[in-house]
Amino acid sequence: MTGKKKTAHASLEAMYRVFTVPEAPDSTLSRIDQDISRNLAGFLQEHIVAIERDLGEVVRDFNESAVPEKPIFVSEQTQFLLDKLVANSVHTASPSFVGHMTSALPYFMLPLSKIMIALNQNLVKTETSKAFTPLERQVLGMIHRLVYNEDSAYYRKWMHDPRYALGAMCSGGTIANLTALWVARNQAFPAEGSFRGLHEEGLFRALRYYGYEGAAILVSRRGHYSLRKAADVLGLGRNALIPIDTDDENRIQTDALRDKCLELQKQKVKILAICGIAGTTETGNVDPLDAMADIAREFGAHFHVDAAWGGPTLFSRTYGPLLKGIEQADSVTFDAHKQLYVPMGAGLVVFRNPELVGAIEHHAQYIIRKGSRDLGSTTLEGSRPGMAMLIHSGLKILAREGYELLIDQGIEKAKLFAEMIDRREDFELVTRPELNILTYRYCPAATQDALSRADTLQSERINASLNRITKYIQKTQREHGKAFVSRTRLEPAKHHHFPCVVFRVVLANPLTTPEILRDILDEQTQLAKESELQDEIEMLENLTQSVPPLTHTREAL
Amino acid sequence: MTGKKKTAHASLEAMYRVFTVPEAPDSTLSRIDQDISRNLAGFLQEHIVAIERDLGEVVRDFNESAVPEKPIFVSEQTQFLLDKLVANSVHTASPSFVGHMTSALPYFMLPLSKIMIALNQNLVKTETSKAFTPLERQVLGMIHRLVYNEDSAYYRKWMHDPRYALGAMCSGGTIANLTALWVARNQAFPAEGSFRGLHEEGLFRALRYYGYEGAAILVSRRGHYSLRKAADVLGLGRNALIPIDTDDENRIQTDALRDKCLELQKQKVKILAICGIAGTTETGNVDPLDAMADIAREFGAHFHVDAAWGGPTLFSRTYGPLLKGIEQADSVTFDAHKQLYVPMGAGLVVFRNPELVGAIEHHAQYIIRKGSRDLGSTTLEGSRPGMAMLIHSGLKILAREGYELLIDQGIEKAKLFAEMIDRREDFELVTRPELNILTYRYCPAATQDALSRADTLQSERINASLNRITKYIQKTQREHGKAFVSRTRLEPAKHHHFPCVVFRVVLANPLTTPEILRDILDEQTQLAKESELQDEIEMLENLTQSVPPLTHTREAL
Repeated sequence: MTGKKKTAHASLEAMYRVFTVPEAPDSTLSRIDQDISRNLAGFLQEHIVAIERDLGEVVRDFNESAVPEKPIFVSEQTQFLLDKLVANSVHTASPSFVGHMTSALPYFMLPLSKIMIALNQNLVKTETSKAFTPLERQVLGMIHRLVYNEDSAYYRKWMHDPRYALGAMCSGGTIANLTALWVARNQAFPAEGSFRGLHEEGLFRALRYYGYEGAAILVSRRGHYSLRKAADVLGLGRNALIPIDTDDENRIQTDALRDKCLELQKQKVKILAICGIAGTTETGNVDPLDAMADIAREFGAHFHVDAAWGGPTLFSRTYGPLLKGIEQADSVTFDAHKQLYVPMGAGLVVFRNPELVGAIEHHAQYIIRKGSRDLGSTTLEGSRPGMAMLIHSGLKILAREGYELLIDQGIEKAKLFAEMIDRREDFELVTRPELNILTYRYCPAATQDALSRADTLQSERINASLNRITKYIQKTQREHGKAFVSRTRLEPAKHHHFPCVVFRVVLANPLTTPEILRDILDEQTQLAKESELQDEIEMLENLTQSVPPLTHTREAL
Repeated sequence: MTGKKKTAHASLEAMYRVFTVPEAPDSTLSRIDQDISRNLAGFLQEHIVAIERDLGEVVRDFNESAVPEKPIFVSEQTQFLLDKLVANSVHTASPSFVGHMTSALPYFMLPLSKIMIALNQNLVKTETSKAFTPLERQVLGMIHRLVYNEDSAYYRKWMHDPRYALGAMCSGGTIANLTALWVARNQAFPAEGSFRGLHEEGLFRALRYYGYEGAAILVSRRGHYSLRKAADVLGLGRNALIPIDTDDENRIQTDALRDKCLELQKQKVKILAICGIAGTTETGNVDPLDAMADIAREFGAHFHVDAAWGGPTLFSRTYGPLLKGIEQADSVTFDAHKQLYVPMGAGLVVFRNPELVGAIEHHAQYIIRKGSRDLGSTTLEGSRPGMAMLIHSGLKILAREGYELLIDQGIEKAKLFAEMIDRREDFELVTRPELNILTYRYCPAATQDALSRADTLQSERINASLNRITKYIQKTQREHGKAFVSRTRLEPAKHHHFPCVVFRVVLANPLTTPEILRDILDEQTQLAKESELQDEIEMLENLTQSVPPLTHTREAL
């Protein structure tokens, strides 16, 4: 009988054993632990079921609502997790799952995570994190330097000075964006005269004192939804997040941005922040950051760049220049659990000016006392794990060169995939990859041709039909379990801004090969031939043929 | 040469190996991995240095600010982490480290965490989490039931209905409190007539539309600092967090609370929320929740209970009733990485009314589409790890009985420790434990006696001296590294509200024995005799003697 079996009797002695006696080497859990260490890919392949089980059915395994009265054996719970949870989880590391931003992890992240969890540090204060505090500051410094490229003397001065912060670690990009905009909002309405600052007196009095009718954040229509959420949380309201139209490459139209700023200014609306995007979630495009920085300066607005996805492109000598202008941002969001390849739950924001976080600084008597080195005084979150250790390890083990390779191969693979789509009869590339993301859809060549000549009504009908087909293919492919592309909706100008359903592909997993991409297209071509779709396909053909061909006369021109 | 060694050359082939070839069994990292599995306590004991190294010195190991150009071997980074990071981290699991809320973890949490990290799910949407979605909903349901105790039919109806949520998972208590108050704020200013709701139009227009001059959140002076932070983030301003005085047991004075509400009402300030505390961070006390619920109802305020620390007390048949009234709360914060004994980074909030989260619901086209089961539509965070799996495992393996034992032994040990302090000549118990937290300080019996007779000036002088001594002892004990108690400042009524520095002890680690507690007091007694303190001790003795003894006449009375 192993130590763990005793836990089925809730005695104090059993409880001590749960904390002191490790899993026996022959226990179910130990075996899995070893399996994962030896062969993670095999473990995932073997234990995650390929064919999708309907989620409504999976729910049945999680119906009990009462906390069970009696302890069960660790082995029993482990078996349950294997059969019910692991089996029906998503194989995010699979090289043929190219629909989301979660990729495979470098192997060393697993044992390193174990050390992190075993140490169970809390980074809110040095008392419970010690060396993790300077480590986290170093990680923030390294990303700061990657973005702003100050010299070593600068970092010697600022990096470890407890009165300032080069950034803030977060659980992810959403909190990073929120932190940046929180800083921007407080910074925009500082203490002055009888007014003690927005952070003390709130937004209502701030606007009244400064004589504004509102406050706005501007971002392109491709901005991440977390920005709208942030506008809500910060008390500005979702309407304060003002979407600006994009050009054909999904980049913000800077003229429209500037016009909107002028209009808001006339309406006595304070321009709190202008957000550039370095890697839009849906299409992977980069805004014209230099031009946006100029506009932000003109209107005295905080310039934030959401580089949650594209930030690590800066590691690449070839593609890094795509992000030119990012060094003018007041704040930049990075997601470590995306293209820094660390496990889920790590994002960060860096600030050009290390004094900026003063706008959100907090203290308490029993924690993060004034003058302490405690990181908690400048983070939105309180208790936090030592994820910085994993980022640090990625930066050291893969180094700039390693991340550059990962970035370069992703972008080049996306270009290759775009060419493959261009060559296929049945597909239309909707957005060409700038970074490693592209979108396309089912759309036979004849239909593409017809669409180029269709009037608005014809175009709408054809696109509606295409949407149904693309959606069917995406869902069915996911259910079959061999591959996964995601889908979203875009409003391309060339289709009269009609919402078009598209496949979305993210090529960050280095294990994804051109063969896998070919197979994905082959399977989609096959799915389009499924009997369930034939009525729709026939309708599409009729719609296509109903668009009159170019007349000879016009052709002659 | 192991696969990992190849990473020192950043070639594409090497990059593939980093993702596909596990650590060799004889690699440094694999050996540590196995060490931790076999003997975690030994690993921590051996690798974390006992004597505290000055943090300023530790910083030197983290001074490099540039991301290194060239990859290094995994073994090299591992050795660096062992020597520089692990060695100088904090032994949070040590049974003699009773100063913080981070305790030892049950052994099974480690291998389970490894499974979680290997699966690398993202709980923002079902596409990247699948079975983790109903699992998380079940965990929220179980905690909801623990708090609100509805019947099974209730949970059959609500638990898995994607249109509602019984709660929201968070990275910790701070985000949980913020989420609850975000809901309360939006809920207080709904759409009506021409007004489209605070969530759309923001706080400025909301107050104007509803005719208020401000909005406030009320909590006792012992409220966690995250509530003040939330008031700031939400745009209310830190001044909107109104602290109410407590009684001698650190519980909110409900008369003062009600008076303040009346006053605010007169000033046309909307009472957004009243926050009760179930386990104050510094002293572990529980507010009179029933009475607070009545007041919240009277003023139409959201009633939130911050049970980040004390929530799991509900598992105990003996002590659960201390939290009576919590079932009347509109929302309750729980921290899983505290007394649910899961690793750092897991908190949650539950809502009495599952429709409440509608106030913060968000959607986007490419994610968390309307009608989907995606959890991301009702959480503040976006991408999140599958920590729910660890909470689930704790609830199943330890079960109610197991958690009850953990809670009971902690509270009983705290009572025992209080008795030990009472019996010591040199210490004064400052706050008696209601849950498993207590505070005390260095204060010889003669000084305690003198303080009971001292006038305000004498009292201040004596307390200032006691503060210096207690602070010295606390810091020195921590530096010696055998034991750790934290310190905070309280303003006891009996000392004319003069700020008193106290030792703070949290007894959640089941491995902490009475002998360890005795040793802590012994070491503190010894430290008070250190030569560095003797001038201060002498001064204290003089101050003590300067307070005149009771006259015979008064004694005769």
